Amino acid sequence: MATSLKGKDVIRIQDFSVEEVNMVMENAARFATMLEKNDRLTNMAGKVLATLFYEPSTRTRLSFETAMLRLGGQVVSVAEAKTSSSAAKGETLFDTGKMIESYSDVAVIRHPIVGSAAELASGSGAPVINGGDGAGQHPTQALLDLYTILIEKGKVKDLTVALAGDLKNGRTVHSLSALLSRFGFRFYFVAPDALKMPAEITENLKKQKVEIVETPDCAKALADSDVVYMTRIQKERFEDPADYERLKGSYELDLKLVKKAKKGLTIMHPLPRVTEIAKDVDSYEGTAYFRQAANGVPVRMALLALVTGLE
Amino acid sequence: MATSLKGKDVIRIQDFSVEEVNMVMENAARFATMLEKNDRLTNMAGKVLATLFYEPSTRTRLSFETAMLRLGGQVVSVAEAKTSSSAAKGETLFDTGKMIESYSDVAVIRHPIVGSAAELASGSGAPVINGGDGAGQHPTQALLDLYTILIEKGKVKDLTVALAGDLKNGRTVHSLSALLSRFGFRFYFVAPDALKMPAEITENLKKQKVEIVETPDCAKALADSDVVYMTRIQKERFEDPADYERLKGSYELDLKLVKKAKKGLTIMHPLPRVTEIAKDVDSYEGTAYFRQAANGVPVRMALLALVTGLE
Amino acid sequence: MATSLKGKDVIRIQDFSVEEVNMVMENAARFATMLEKNDRLTNMAGKVLATLFYEPSTRTRLSFETAMLRLGGQVVSVAEAKTSSSAAKGETLFDTGKMIESYSDVAVIRHPIVGSAAELASGSGAPVINGGDGAGQHPTQALLDLYTILIEKGKVKDLTVALAGDLKNGRTVHSLSALLSRFGFRFYFVAPDALKMPAEITENLKKQKVEIVETPDCAKALADSDVVYMTRIQKERFEDPADYERLKGSYELDLKLVKKAKKGLTIMHPLPRVTEIAKDVDSYEGTAYFRQAANGVPVRMALLALVTGLE
Repeated sequence: MATSLKGKDVIRIQDFSVEEVNMVMENAARFATMLEKNDRLTNMAGKVLATLFYEPSTRTRLSFETAMLRLGGQVVSVAEAKTSSSAAKGETLFDTGKMIESYSDVAVIRHPIVGSAAELASGSGAPVINGGDGAGQHPTQALLDLYTILIEKGKVKDLTVALAGDLKNGRTVHSLSALLSRFGFRFYFVAPDALKMPAEITENLKKQKVEIVETPDCAKALADSDVVYMTRIQKERFEDPADYERLKGSYELDLKLVKKAKKGLTIMHPLPRVTEIAKDVDSYEGTAYFRQAANGVPVRMALLALVTGLE
Repeated sequence: MATSLKGKDVIRIQDFSVEEVNMVMENAARFATMLEKNDRLTNMAGKVLATLFYEPSTRTRLSFETAMLRLGGQVVSVAEAKTSSSAAKGETLFDTGKMIESYSDVAVIRHPIVGSAAELASGSGAPVINGGDGAGQHPTQALLDLYTILIEKGKVKDLTVALAGDLKNGRTVHSLSALLSRFGFRFYFVAPDALKMPAEITENLKKQKVEIVETPDCAKALADSDVVYMTRIQKERFEDPADYERLKGSYELDLKLVKKAKKGLTIMHPLPRVTEIAKDVDSYEGTAYFRQAANGVPVRMALLALVTGLE
Repeated sequence: MATSLKGKDVIRIQDFSVEEVNMVMENAARFATMLEKNDRLTNMAGKVLATLFYEPSTRTRLSFETAMLRLGGQVVSVAEAKTSSSAAKGETLFDTGKMIESYSDVAVIRHPIVGSAAELASGSGAPVINGGDGAGQHPTQALLDLYTILIEKGKVKDLTVALAGDLKNGRTVHSLSALLSRFGFRFYFVAPDALKMPAEITENLKKQKVEIVETPDCAKALADSDVVYMTRIQKERFEDPADYERLKGSYELDLKLVKKAKKGLTIMHPLPRVTEIAKDVDSYEGTAYFRQAANGVPVRMALLALVTGLE
């Protein structure tokens, strides 16, 4: 029996089976080919996506909107939902979900509070996609990251990935490690002590026999990794600013560091970057972060098409 | 001779004849059927709607934009017009109307000041629709409310409607009573003394032989009404906060109160709601407020199509 | 060999040859005719324009978006880019350009800092159009101004234009004088001493044998000009507010002043206007500022179509 994602909300990466993830990957690849050939798509003709952003995220919002438009659909957009009258007047996200169901065929929400995407989905008969809910999840980022590895490496088997930077607060790396572990990846978790991956995540992965090395030494991890996934260390996370000044240098990737890494290293980053990857790395052939951002479009096309049943 | 709304501005509900209102109702019903059948419409292909919101209103803006997109048209949107350079630099709404005429085929404006929709319309050769002008009017809300009653009750004759809550400051109930009175509705105006319907509105309706009962007793009105239209009581309207605390409970509809009401009571609310309707009312079969919000789309499709002559 | 603008960034008006400017004019005229005939265009079907506005400009943003939609294309919009997460987190415009290239086929940027459009273009493989970069350039405004003169006068040869108002700070008049000088225009630069055209611009034009008369006397210039281009004098530019009060009256065009001008005077203004043109001038037959604003659409259609190679 064929799996279908029609009507499915995309809230947590754990809600997707490996088979469903593979279906997203296959459809993304198909749409990427169509984009390259400049095919005009009409899958979504007459359909409307609503994007509700309670905190700004240009990259996520624009890539979803472009995905919908490239599919031939249309978009209504609330870029500053926090200041919208409904939110300001205290409407629940359940009620907002009822509104969204009336006005659109599928919705994307970004919200600073964990669980808000699920609350919107509880009110909406139209499928809801979580575009990031605070410290919670960002499942479509994890899917486009996996897709990027698949495209860059030509496979998702037998690979070692180093997740580096702020692993404590980064919802991106939490969703991503949950997803990659199910495809048999080995991990380096590279972070200063103050920003280590939460123990419950590490322990949970180890229980599932996932191979993990935790280290603060970025160079060491790079020497043994096929992929490095950098994230930003934010000054405001440190109680003592001196700790930040001391540590930040270790997590700034430059071409010198890249040259000591394992041959063929693929470099990823969810963007925007500030100082954590030097500009000289842009010209390195394994640099994938701009291609990774571009992959957001076909992966989100796949998700939009699948959950609306119009793939 | 056939009536036509082509080129007409939609500023005040009083500017519409009963015949014109009926034309909106008929077209709305026709579009609702097409939406249900998932028909792809192209009435507005190549046409552009401009939405200019000088105060936020997600529900009104999105329902107009969705209506335009469902008709096959396109949208340019100024969600935060107050901070736009033109407004900040002191451009008149007449001049803004000239701009709108150049860039779009029809416009919707929401503005905190009474008369602003008319001022925009004075400059624009393209039809202008008032999406709410301060304490003034919100004519498209009144039209979708009438449409909702028509759909829920199957008729607009011989009905009693209770308007409840803040009747003093609510532009929605002012426009709505003006509209419904012309279709022969009987009214309960249910409000605490401090928030009663303005005397000039009540007296004007009575002169037209409209049957009105004014009462602060919500339960009494519900026992004799076919439809109740709840509005929000805002704390900031009261000089003495103690008055607010004392009164608010009487205007919070819950399932217990609903069970004592006339059989078949239809419950409406312009949304967003906060505490004035309890969540347990959502499951009651006469609860129409979510369907009412959804009706905004076909009613606004009808208006957009009629004023641009593309119905 | 045919000139092509395909792939060209539109950053400074000086980057356009006279031949290229003429190509924009011809295509604008062609699109204007199609708009008048209500032709449905599909040149841009399946294509996406990204508008990135780091400062608000309703007129510029909406005219670009309408231009794209009238061509059958689609739009993703960041109306408040300054508060977007990428900008707030310190992403470079080079990186933003990489994003834009992934999500759109052409981009427009408005930014308060000189050089920002060029920086965005350095990162983007998709063509970038400068919608105004601080005190720098606003090349599409200059092109639509030239187009307006061409339409109003039926020619661009042997004409005298008076640029009046704040010539010191106005990027619009800087770009415009650079463009018009190449078509043989004669100039009056009409400004109070404190707001004169920068000496380097005047001297540079004189070196190219352009005829220029500098004067603070608006009436005198109007008596000898075919076109007057008014700009706004902003109070905040004056060190001494008394200077502003003394001067502003001289640069407020009213019908009395217009009647003393050369017969057939064409009156232009980039809009929004505040007090620098009285409302009684609106009814004068040579009043072109509203038509000028409307010309923004076909001129920007031409630019969008030419730089994407889809004219």
